[in-house]
Order: sequence, then C-alpha cells, then structure tokens
Amino acid sequence: MLRVEEAREVILRHAPVRRVERMTLDQALGLILAEDLTAGESLPPFPRSGMDGYALRSADTEAATRENPVVLPLTGVIPAGHPLADVLEPGRVASIMTGGAVPAGADAVIRLEEVRVTPEGIRIFRHVPAGENVAPIGEDVVAGTVVLKAGHRIRPAEVNLLTAIGIGEVAVYAPPRVGILCTGDELVPLGAPLGPGQIRNSNGPGLAALVRSCGCVPVDLGTAHDVTDVIAGALGHAKDCDLIITTGGVSVGDFDVVREALAVMGAEQLFWRISLKPGTPVCAAMLEGRLVVGLSGNPAAAITNFDLLVRPLLDSLCGRARIGLRETEGVLDQPVLKTAAVARYLRAWVYNGPTGEIRIDTSMAQRAGILSSMMYANAYAIIPAHEGPLPAGVRLRVMLYEDAEVMVPVCRSAE
Amino acid sequence: MLRVEEAREVILRHAPVRRVERMTLDQALGLILAEDLTAGESLPPFPRSGMDGYALRSADTEAATRENPVVLPLTGVIPAGHPLADVLEPGRVASIMTGGAVPAGADAVIRLEEVRVTPEGIRIFRHVPAGENVAPIGEDVVAGTVVLKAGHRIRPAEVNLLTAIGIGEVAVYAPPRVGILCTGDELVPLGAPLGPGQIRNSNGPGLAALVRSCGCVPVDLGTAHDVTDVIAGALGHAKDCDLIITTGGVSVGDFDVVREALAVMGAEQLFWRISLKPGTPVCAAMLEGRLVVGLSGNPAAAITNFDLLVRPLLDSLCGRARIGLRETEGVLDQPVLKTAAVARYLRAWVYNGPTGEIRIDTSMAQRAGILSSMMYANAYAIIPAHEGPLPAGVRLRVMLYEDAEVMVPVCRSAE
Repeated sequence: MLRVEEAREVILRHAPVRRVERMTLDQALGLILAEDLTAGESLPPFPRSGMDGYALRSADTEAATRENPVVLPLTGVIPAGHPLADVLEPGRVASIMTGGAVPAGADAVIRLEEVRVTPEGIRIFRHVPAGENVAPIGEDVVAGTVVLKAGHRIRPAEVNLLTAIGIGEVAVYAPPRVGILCTGDELVPLGAPLGPGQIRNSNGPGLAALVRSCGCVPVDLGTAHDVTDVIAGALGHAKDCDLIITTGGVSVGDFDVVREALAVMGAEQLFWRISLKPGTPVCAAMLEGRLVVGLSGNPAAAITNFDLLVRPLLDSLCGRARIGLRETEGVLDQPVLKTAAVARYLRAWVYNGPTGEIRIDTSMAQRAGILSSMMYANAYAIIPAHEGPLPAGVRLRVMLYEDAEVMVPVCRSAE
Repeated sequence: MLRVEEAREVILRHAPVRRVERMTLDQALGLILAEDLTAGESLPPFPRSGMDGYALRSADTEAATRENPVVLPLTGVIPAGHPLADVLEPGRVASIMTGGAVPAGADAVIRLEEVRVTPEGIRIFRHVPAGENVAPIGEDVVAGTVVLKAGHRIRPAEVNLLTAIGIGEVAVYAPPRVGILCTGDELVPLGAPLGPGQIRNSNGPGLAALVRSCGCVPVDLGTAHDVTDVIAGALGHAKDCDLIITTGGVSVGDFDVVREALAVMGAEQLFWRISLKPGTPVCAAMLEGRLVVGLSGNPAAAITNFDLLVRPLLDSLCGRARIGLRETEGVLDQPVLKTAAVARYLRAWVYNGPTGEIRIDTSMAQRAGILSSMMYANAYAIIPAHEGPLPAGVRLRVMLYEDAEVMVPVCRSAE
C-alpha cells in the first residue's frame, strides 16, 4: 500500500492544468495572481498635500523665525479635487486641504495648526523646508514599475492599491470546479423520510462544504445508486469539472462499484488502498484525462481522505504558496495504546501549554465510524505505520485545521 | 486623545444588537451557532456494519478455531440500504456490506477477508466476539443529547454530522451589513478618466474587501462630495445597515465635513482623534441609534483604523470567540529611529527566525501616504506612545493579519 505522502504525490502529478481567468478585483479577492502587474500610471498622480494647511514656496519662508515671522498673502483655496488653474505666484500662499494638488510654483505645505491667519495674510514662524507635507508624484507607485508579481495573493490592501492605479481586472488562478458524486443505495437526501436501513446523504453536503472552505467550487453530480452503469453515467456528466471526487463504493465488497464503474469506462487506476486509518479504501484514477479521487464512504474517513489528498491538490490549483494543511509538532497528552500496520491520523485538539509548547489532546473518540468527535478536533495527530503503543509525552507531527491557532513556522513567500 | 484600546472599548460598548437568523447549513458554513442543537434522532439509526463481511450470532462461533472451523450456511445478502426483512436464524450468516443494517438476531460481523466461502456455507476459523464490526444505534450521536452548543463554528465536519441527523437549518449570528460611504470631491470611480487633482475612489472597493474578508456584507452607500447635506443624505439612506463606516472628511480642514454632517443630523459624537499613527483623525458617533465610524481618508490609515476598531466589532457581532486580529510578541530586526506622542502601528513582516522565535521586519515604507508597502506586510508592530527610538532586538507586540503563519497562543474555546 502507498504511504499517504506517496499517494499525494501521485495525485499532484496527475493534476489538471491550472486555469487562469481575468476577473474583477471584487471577484479576485483571496485568489492568487497569475501575472505580474505593471503600473500604467503613478500614485499619487500629482504632488499631493498630506495635510490641511498652506501651500507655499520654501524659499519665501527662509528668513522666518518665531520672533520675525513672514506674512504671505493668501491667493486661493485648493480643496481636494479642485486644483488651482495657475501657478502659485512667488510670495503668496494658497490654502490647501489634505489630498489637494500642490500647485505649480509651490514646493511645501505648512500645517494649519502652525500658522496664524491675519488680515494681511498668513503669518509663518519658521522656515518650511522644500518637500514638507508634499507627497511627490509617484511617491507610492511609479508608472512602469511592477507593483505585484505572479503568486501574490489579492487581499484588501491589494484591492485598494490596484483600484488607485486604475487596474480593475487581473489574471488569477481560477478556483477549480470539483464534481462530487455520492454513491450508495442506503442514501436518502436531507428532508426525505428515513426508511429501514437508510441513512441521509451527509457526505454530499459535507464534501461541498470542504470544497468551499478551500475556496473552490463544488459541483453536485448527484447521488448514484450502487449500480455500475448509473455511476458510470453520473461520472460521464462531469464535463465542466476540473476533477471529480466520489464517496463510497471503494471497499472490497461485491457492491463497491465505483472502481468497477471506472474500469468499465476505461479509466486508468492510479492507486487503491493506502496506508491510512481512517480512510484506507481510497482510490484515484484517470478517466478520459480527468482525475477522479474515490473517497471512503465513511464520513470521518472521507474528511480525512479529503484533507490529506484532495486539499493539497486544490491549494496547488489555486496557486497557493502553501499546499495542504499546516504542519508542526507537539507533545502528546495521553498515551496511545494501540499499534497499527498503517499510518494513523488521530483526531486531536492542539493547544499551547503553560510554557507555550504545543500540546496534543487525543482523548476524543477515534473509531472510524464516529464523526461527532471530529467536531471537537482542530488537528490531526500523525502516528506512523507500525509505531505504538506510545507513552504520554512523546512528540508527534500534527496537521492543523485552518482555524487552529497555534505556532507554525512561516517562510517568506510571494503570498 | 483616547488610546486605541479605549476607542475600541467605546465602539464595542455601542455595538448594535447581534442579529440571529435561521439558515441552511450551506449558508451557515463558517458562521457561529446562536443556539444549542439537540439531536432529534440517533446516529447510526440502526446497528450498522463497519465492514464488508458476514453478519452472525457470536454464540454460533464460540467453538471455532483454525483447526476446527465452524461452517454456517448463508441465508441472504444485505447491501447497504436493503435490510433483511426477517430475523437472522440461529446457525446462519448473512452476507453484509459496509453500511448495511445488521439484522435482528445477529450481534457481530466478521470481515470478508477472514472467512472461506465453501459450497456448504461460510467457514469461520475463530470466535467472533459480540459487537465486532457493529456500530450500535447511537454510537455516534444519541437522540435527545446536545450535539453542539451555541458559540460553536459551523465547519465542514459539522455540516456533515448535522445533515446526518436531519438538521438542515440552524440559528446563527448573521453577518453584519456594513454601509460604506466614501467622501471627497477628488474621487472618481474606477474606469472614469482622471482629471487634474483627481484620484480614484480606492477606499470604497478596499473597505468592501475588508468587510468581506471579515465574513460580513458590504453595502455601498456611494461617494458623496464634500458638501454637508449630500453626506447627510447619503447617511440617511443606510436604514438596513447594522453599522456605517465612512472614509475621509474627518480631519481639521474646512472641507472635512463628515463630522459636520453628523452634527447637523443630531448624531452624538463618541470620540474624534485617537492616539494612533497612521490614522489619528478617526471618529465615532451614534446617529439615530446606529453606530457610525468615520475612518481616515488616507488608504493606509483607513485600513489601520478598520483593523483596530471595526474588525473587532464585526468579530463580536459574528459571535466569534476571538475578537480582532491575533496578537503575539516578536523581536525587532531593525532599530526604530523615531519617537512619537501617539502609538504607532508599523507595517511589518513577521516570520519565525532560525530558532523559531518570531522576528519583526519593519523595513518597508512607513509613511501614512504610502499604501504599496502594506501589500508586503503581514502584521502590525506596535510601538506605544512616547516610546522610541528603539534599538534592534527589542521585543514588541504584533498584531497578525489573517494569513500570517506564526506562533500564537491558543485557548480552548467553544469555537
């Protein structure tokens, strides 16, 4: 059986091509740039006053002191958005607001609070150096320079800056469309009555939520009963999906037909069964050039399969710098009593202990059939194959859910 | 001037009422439960086989050994979703698939791989203890118990489990609707030509992106020119917003009219100007019972104002356990040369150093008028008022952007 890391590599090697789309900034929020962006204009586009005050020529204030202030007559008012039409004449000042265009002729702005307004003009008590409170053209961004490189994530500050320099559309990696096919005769949809031996299709909504929580687009391929050609038909309707995930029907029984349906359709099997608990019976195949990952039908196992094998692929397709859940190490609170021939990914609650170290609590129920305990987990604690029993206090690798707030290393990346 | 922490407290004290809405699980993904949820039914709803194999009575295998296997005739097949109508007779077995209903009379399932199928029946080589591979009714969730408490976040595992027990709608804290009003005669929308002294309205899209990145709903109140009654009119059109944020028009100049408009409309000012750089000229007021926060017009300052004052409020309204950006401490890479009478929130890149310690790089441009450097930051480094100059190597508090991946303490919370 493949190890988890090997299965992940196989899937990443068979990844579909990353789709690049041009989007508005609003649509691109949170996505990763697929192009370098060059500024077409400078920011600010004119010399901009950084304060409410008076625009002036620095030279006119050269002799000003507290004892011998200079008085410069006022010639105009420059609100933001209403520049002076003319050059500021020597020996004069213009009232200017924050964001106003510093007029030609002026080279500095003195703050409102520092002057005295008199009938003769504005009284100034010190030399105002050239450039004071003036943001020159291109102080923030110079036209022609690359402002963002491919690989950078579009966050709110990026939306603000790109809008400011007139870039309203960008090429980003499009969120993959993930087809979701649930299989099983026992499944009924939410809202329908539950007959004997039936359960609700919870993996469909659960996997759609996982896909959305990765910033991707779930596509409902419906629920197929355990008959090979029904499944084959459903898989055939997934033309506009970047990849397909299925749940159920990958075990060893007579009625586990996802693999059979894939075989009937001529798919090439990449792997089946990996060294992983929960979630051993997972398979991957290439069907008409499209990747299909067949997850376990057991909800807890399906989520684990998704987090370990599908999430890294989706991160990669989205162009993210980090692929898959964050990993770090922690110290086990309780002993692990069992050993297993396959790697175990225990549900865990990780937290920082009294001295800041990461602690791992695995006291919740671990049986594959139990889903409720996953709601109280924020990580997986990883026990390699053939390891165990383990005493409390050993160090283990952990993979953190998105909302776990503990220490992890950061590297300086484009994102 | 109020300190940042005091201003934040004032805003939180004037928070609107948290709105609770019933939503589908799909809509509720990522939101916080506003009610305890009690299971109306058990999961699994019937004794469920955890394996592909054979359902049997444990007692019938009591004498079985490798040398002296028992042979039990096969009476039926139980795919998932197709339970047996009858009790399993003593001395017989039924083929059963993973997820199938273990029939009355049977109390254990032996795995497919462990038996031999013969013409006389299924040959079994060991005692199969009662309960083996059978998930009893309610193993996961017992009807009548509380499965999730108010305050818990709806994640994919929660969607899966709640669907499984037939809960399709939940009461959650509704994402607040945040009205955004931009002010300034100098503003033109993206796509329009830029005249002399004009700039694009980048704060509108930038603040909408910030609101969305907090999981909340931006409501565009438009761009008001710097005339008091235009602004007053725009503010008056925000009836369905939980709160309103404005940008620009809160400085000291003649044309800074947001505060004047608020005064004209009879708003009660809560504060104006706080000890913060960038972003000193921020104000808050209550207008007809609704909170209005007037952010700086400077993009970098507006983002800082938002992160420090508005984001914590939005987190609180969403019912989140953590309010505002995560905080931790780090070690400064470069000296800080200046001192200031107000607290400074420097743009920073935080990262884990060679020994895991958090390092703070503040080498990017810090001037309030420069927005581009915010794109290369993942944190604020906080320098208290009147502190500085500071040498490299001192410890500073940092506030981490959502996507910064460094160590922070975690506490065990409902979320």
